[in-house]
Amino acid sequence: MFTIYPVDKTQSIHIKKRIDNKTKPIGALGQLEPLAEQLALIQQRDTLTIDNPHLLIFAADHGISQHGISIAPAEVTTQMVHNFLAGGAAANCFCRSNNMSLKIVDAGILGDVDDHPDLIRLPLGKGTQDFTTQDAMSLDTVQQAISAGASVVDSLHQSGTNLVAFGEMGIGNTSSAAAIMALLLNLPADACTGHGTGIDDSQYQKKLALIRLACKHHYSATGDPLKVLSAVGGFEIAQITGGILQAAENRMIILVDGFIVTAAALLAVAINPNVIDYLVFCHHSEEAGHHRMLQHLNASPLLNLGLRLGEGTGAVLALPLIKAACAFYNDMASFDDAGVTV
Amino acid sequence: MFTIYPVDKTQSIHIKKRIDNKTKPIGALGQLEPLAEQLALIQQRDTLTIDNPHLLIFAADHGISQHGISIAPAEVTTQMVHNFLAGGAAANCFCRSNNMSLKIVDAGILGDVDDHPDLIRLPLGKGTQDFTTQDAMSLDTVQQAISAGASVVDSLHQSGTNLVAFGEMGIGNTSSAAAIMALLLNLPADACTGHGTGIDDSQYQKKLALIRLACKHHYSATGDPLKVLSAVGGFEIAQITGGILQAAENRMIILVDGFIVTAAALLAVAINPNVIDYLVFCHHSEEAGHHRMLQHLNASPLLNLGLRLGEGTGAVLALPLIKAACAFYNDMASFDDAGVTV
Repeated sequence: MFTIYPVDKTQSIHIKKRIDNKTKPIGALGQLEPLAEQLALIQQRDTLTIDNPHLLIFAADHGISQHGISIAPAEVTTQMVHNFLAGGAAANCFCRSNNMSLKIVDAGILGDVDDHPDLIRLPLGKGTQDFTTQDAMSLDTVQQAISAGASVVDSLHQSGTNLVAFGEMGIGNTSSAAAIMALLLNLPADACTGHGTGIDDSQYQKKLALIRLACKHHYSATGDPLKVLSAVGGFEIAQITGGILQAAENRMIILVDGFIVTAAALLAVAINPNVIDYLVFCHHSEEAGHHRMLQHLNASPLLNLGLRLGEGTGAVLALPLIKAACAFYNDMASFDDAGVTV
Repeated sequence: MFTIYPVDKTQSIHIKKRIDNKTKPIGALGQLEPLAEQLALIQQRDTLTIDNPHLLIFAADHGISQHGISIAPAEVTTQMVHNFLAGGAAANCFCRSNNMSLKIVDAGILGDVDDHPDLIRLPLGKGTQDFTTQDAMSLDTVQQAISAGASVVDSLHQSGTNLVAFGEMGIGNTSSAAAIMALLLNLPADACTGHGTGIDDSQYQKKLALIRLACKHHYSATGDPLKVLSAVGGFEIAQITGGILQAAENRMIILVDGFIVTAAALLAVAINPNVIDYLVFCHHSEEAGHHRMLQHLNASPLLNLGLRLGEGTGAVLALPLIKAACAFYNDMASFDDAGVTV
């Protein structure tokens, strides 16, 4: 589906040497050092740049939400899309604060939204089917979703964007992400299921029971990313998966937010392992399963602020750290330049 | 010495309500929520602003460094001051990347530096005395240092700065900070002494033995912040302590970097406990004693990137998070505004 190359590591030693020769003890910039190395390997040039960075928020509804296992009803997905388009959500505030552009993709929400310059309409239906006892969507729809997500990212790339962050909105989508994790990694449901944005224990038990049921019903999909998406996915998660694959093909820097976007990253990596080279993990979510997802991907996110909101907020908040890594890689003096004793 | 009031908490409930009524689940913005609350309590107004933010790097040399317990010789302090003034250090790169101004204060370095618009000369000598068996500086010098640091911050405040970050440069200053911590909190030297920017185990044992010796020699200073500064302090640490006290008097937002600046914060809080209301802890350092210092101050820093460089780098990197907290507090829609179902 996608032609994704791993980053070219022939300059690895040169890049590490350049970082080590900056006026600081070796390793003293902590996580920003491997980050700068990754960015240099992605961009393969002497001066790193972040051009026209965008956050894409994919929004969709979920059949599973009819069971009342979220803190909010399904209508909130559409209400929040209105909020994004009006500029009033957390993601908007953080994007303005960090000079990042924001587009909203309707991947398949229940409600109606007027046209807006920041809205991209690629709906695959009015929400997925309830995945506990049937497929969330057909395999054909999965393919359409992946193409749709890819097309959004490809347009950005063609207009000069070299960094894309992914965010999501969809009441019920931590349930979908937990089921994806369980089926893709063949883990028990309770290792993957958390409290979302803040459900109580009785809701949690109900959610867990539904995800257990779904994992049993869809057991034959285990380990197969496209079948898993068809079985228990969400339209927004499937589109993000396609967006990540396309961004990796285009050698873009990809900012991964919390639990749900990481589920899409797991799927993208399962489809093509070379994707991993382009992923920057931004935030360690409070959601229970996220830590294990990150372990599976061997990822150490940049931030751990206790966010549990989604919308790509963790990714947007990490953008200044990406820019700081570029800044020191590009401009910091070497020991020779500065006449500092090694 | 300083007239420092605690923040006025009469609007606390109103501020919390405003944050809770934003279009997000309660608490979903994690650490940014108490941060926004703190900023609102400091500024006491509806629209929070970050005006003309500055990083101040205080540089000084340390008599203790003659024992060779750092990865670099004392000349590097002056060389790094040149590097800061030339714009080539990590702190410069991060300040440019995050739109923060930077001034360097010569608090007492060994070498000579030409005049420069970003250099403030307030030297208290050519480095402190070796504190293992004598006082690092006199009590008079401590008072001068506190006044000097305060004067720098007060000038910034008068020219419209409402946020100041503190950074430091001084070969040997993790030893001074460790001894300050041990004497001020009455802790054993090994609970306070770490590997600095990266010394090996034999250097570490030597460093630890010297700090033990110093703690024994200066035992009568235990718990008294001015006597502790006189006994084992550094010129830069004493000036930062004064700067923090003045910034708190001026109701400025104070960004605290890693181990050494936190030692100055400990001293400032010991001098006047009301200081704590104005401190924003920015980075959890790799240095061994930092965690315990932070526990003592009941502080949870915003970042944990594995930095061990000083220069205020952790504080500068946290500035975008401070701005993001202001942004959501100021501009994020409430449930009522956005018509989102609670």
